[in-house]
Amino acid sequence: MALIVQKFGGTSVGTIERIRNVAWRVAKWHAAGHRLVVVPSAMSGETNRLLSLAAGVQEHPDPRELDVIASTGEQVTVGLLAMALLALGVKARSYAGWQVKVLTDSAHTRARIVKIDEVRLRQDLENGCVAVVAGFQGVDQAGDITTLGRGGSDTSAVALAAALGADECQIYTDVDGVYTTDPRIVPEARRLHTVTFEEMIEMASAGSKVLQIRSVEFAGKYKVPTRVLSSLTDPKLPVAEEARSGTLITFEEDPHMAMEKAVVSGVAAQRDEAKITVHAVPDKPGIAYAILGPIADAGINVDVIVQNVSHDGMTDLSFTLSRGDMPKAIRMLNEQVKPHIKCREVTGDDRMAKVSIVGLGMRSHAGIAAKMFRTLAEEGINIQMISTSEIKISVVIDEKYAELAVRVLHKAFELDQE
Amino acid sequence: MALIVQKFGGTSVGTIERIRNVAWRVAKWHAAGHRLVVVPSAMSGETNRLLSLAAGVQEHPDPRELDVIASTGEQVTVGLLAMALLALGVKARSYAGWQVKVLTDSAHTRARIVKIDEVRLRQDLENGCVAVVAGFQGVDQAGDITTLGRGGSDTSAVALAAALGADECQIYTDVDGVYTTDPRIVPEARRLHTVTFEEMIEMASAGSKVLQIRSVEFAGKYKVPTRVLSSLTDPKLPVAEEARSGTLITFEEDPHMAMEKAVVSGVAAQRDEAKITVHAVPDKPGIAYAILGPIADAGINVDVIVQNVSHDGMTDLSFTLSRGDMPKAIRMLNEQVKPHIKCREVTGDDRMAKVSIVGLGMRSHAGIAAKMFRTLAEEGINIQMISTSEIKISVVIDEKYAELAVRVLHKAFELDQE
Repeated sequence: MALIVQKFGGTSVGTIERIRNVAWRVAKWHAAGHRLVVVPSAMSGETNRLLSLAAGVQEHPDPRELDVIASTGEQVTVGLLAMALLALGVKARSYAGWQVKVLTDSAHTRARIVKIDEVRLRQDLENGCVAVVAGFQGVDQAGDITTLGRGGSDTSAVALAAALGADECQIYTDVDGVYTTDPRIVPEARRLHTVTFEEMIEMASAGSKVLQIRSVEFAGKYKVPTRVLSSLTDPKLPVAEEARSGTLITFEEDPHMAMEKAVVSGVAAQRDEAKITVHAVPDKPGIAYAILGPIADAGINVDVIVQNVSHDGMTDLSFTLSRGDMPKAIRMLNEQVKPHIKCREVTGDDRMAKVSIVGLGMRSHAGIAAKMFRTLAEEGINIQMISTSEIKISVVIDEKYAELAVRVLHKAFELDQE
Repeated sequence: MALIVQKFGGTSVGTIERIRNVAWRVAKWHAAGHRLVVVPSAMSGETNRLLSLAAGVQEHPDPRELDVIASTGEQVTVGLLAMALLALGVKARSYAGWQVKVLTDSAHTRARIVKIDEVRLRQDLENGCVAVVAGFQGVDQAGDITTLGRGGSDTSAVALAAALGADECQIYTDVDGVYTTDPRIVPEARRLHTVTFEEMIEMASAGSKVLQIRSVEFAGKYKVPTRVLSSLTDPKLPVAEEARSGTLITFEEDPHMAMEKAVVSGVAAQRDEAKITVHAVPDKPGIAYAILGPIADAGINVDVIVQNVSHDGMTDLSFTLSRGDMPKAIRMLNEQVKPHIKCREVTGDDRMAKVSIVGLGMRSHAGIAAKMFRTLAEEGINIQMISTSEIKISVVIDEKYAELAVRVLHKAFELDQE
């Protein structure tokens, strides 16, 4: 009899009817003898409703107060879901983050989990009671309510699974697993039965939206077997069948397993990117920090960073970032950085996309990058930046070619074949 | 510089615009140098929305989970109001009940406050920070969220004022004070500048809806000077003027003060009452308990109870209760009580109203009851039950005469004259 943490997203609990469906599903696992902790998000639309109330009161909402308000969305769902379980005759009890308690740092609206006190939950589990825990939220050392940022419920679920030493963390969502690429772009995309943690991390950072990257990192750090599966299947699907559905994120270190796997597991695209280039920078120590330090201090996340070899002691430094951050970043570079580092100019292009191929098999296969570049060249797609990791190759290209690139790469690496 | 607890009802914080108005009002008092604790209710309609969500999930919602859900309404308002104050440049901080903390018993949905730990609030007040505390809610010894029942925010405010030794508790509402009777029934009704605690208690229990009776009891127990005043006046009304508005509940014990007061202070009507009579009950010890014990155990509140002298060892026992409870009470009496006590029959009438006159002055004036009964008789209004306290006389009459009775009594006791 396993200990399982199940997470249900906002769409899955978006109406009373759907909350009843989730209760059915949970009750089924409970009846099969499993011990369950369930983590629902806020009802879909609710968090936006709360944030817009806040935005109506204060132009830049106070982060502490924003968390007080935003955290109520999940608090309502845990109460409703516990009731729906009780209505089915299943013992259940809801918990807000502070009641568990989920201790976080004090970084309001984007707090990180420090420690989970799971004693009270264990008592429930021992008593055959389903613990329904509010995702997305915690409490800091001072007793103030915190939230983990958008998508934080995934992280809550994985963190609870880690704290409890759960056998599996099941993330129920509106897709039925992790695909070789986005099925809306490539209809031949296949669902992966398993994906390694490393691949999942790279796919998440490469733009696959199935799981929030922080939750994947958490799963990796604590080796929590995590399954992505659909909340849209019949709630009465037999447990044995549901248990094999979706995609399981694994932690295989066995090189033989890796050998047997496909060379490339997936193709991902991240749109809405922008590229900034700082031209003719003196190539000397500290220059990358001089450029990127102020950007980081302003809370702007930078993704791919490329610096080429220098000519005549000068080099160009390029990086990508979210499109919305570009104007601010360029203004900062021109006003605060350019006067000090004496570069020639700062240019930006806000119509970029990043397309990546990911695969643990790359470690032991040569020529993957060459094949990727040739495939893109044959379609006339110009590569503007390249970035590689051990199991991922990303290229930054003009956004208008993003879907074409995904399609041809998916085909070139035979991802449509089992 | 006074320490003041201000409570704002759901209508007063019903929209973003109104929350901004409340913030203006609080900021004005803050600017005048007062230390402030503010207790808002949930935005009007929000508590009903939450309760109907719950009712959609479970026919008889689990009380613990209902409190988890219902308490979020006030949590949202405290966050929004704190933000609105911060937007005006006023230091402010919100608190849920468990953060204060407001310790209650574990009677979910109708918990009673046991103790308030006011240390953290005092720190805020010393730092010139407005503490915005969620009304209606607390936390029990086990760390579970509780609520105080409908209208509980009044009680929260008065209890906080008591714990902090506040100079005044100001209850802002959509009426501008306590009137001699309901101005919608009697246009000549006058606002009372002061009313004694005892009168207020009797008026609340007699059907005046201005303040929840539990909050008045709390005010009386801890002698908290409590003022009922309007949240609909111009928020920029000078503090000195606002401080004198509304009706102040006082705690005078001085008999000279009472002597000077009008004999009768107000007339109140409670509609939607029902009357049950248990006929021909053997008049022996324990019979009232045999009848009313099961009723109380079922959570049904009984109001006026009358038992007449007996004839031939038999008596009739009548009591009033809320109209909605009548069918259940009659069923219980017929099924569980009648077989044991051997009464003749149980009858009910669900078209009753209770009309009361209240006044501290009654203590020292004779003939008040006689004048009341004569006034009603002159209008042909039949009195079905009579109940008296030291400062109140209530009569139960046919509901269709309720408004007429209020009007003629208001005039007979010259309540329209200053």
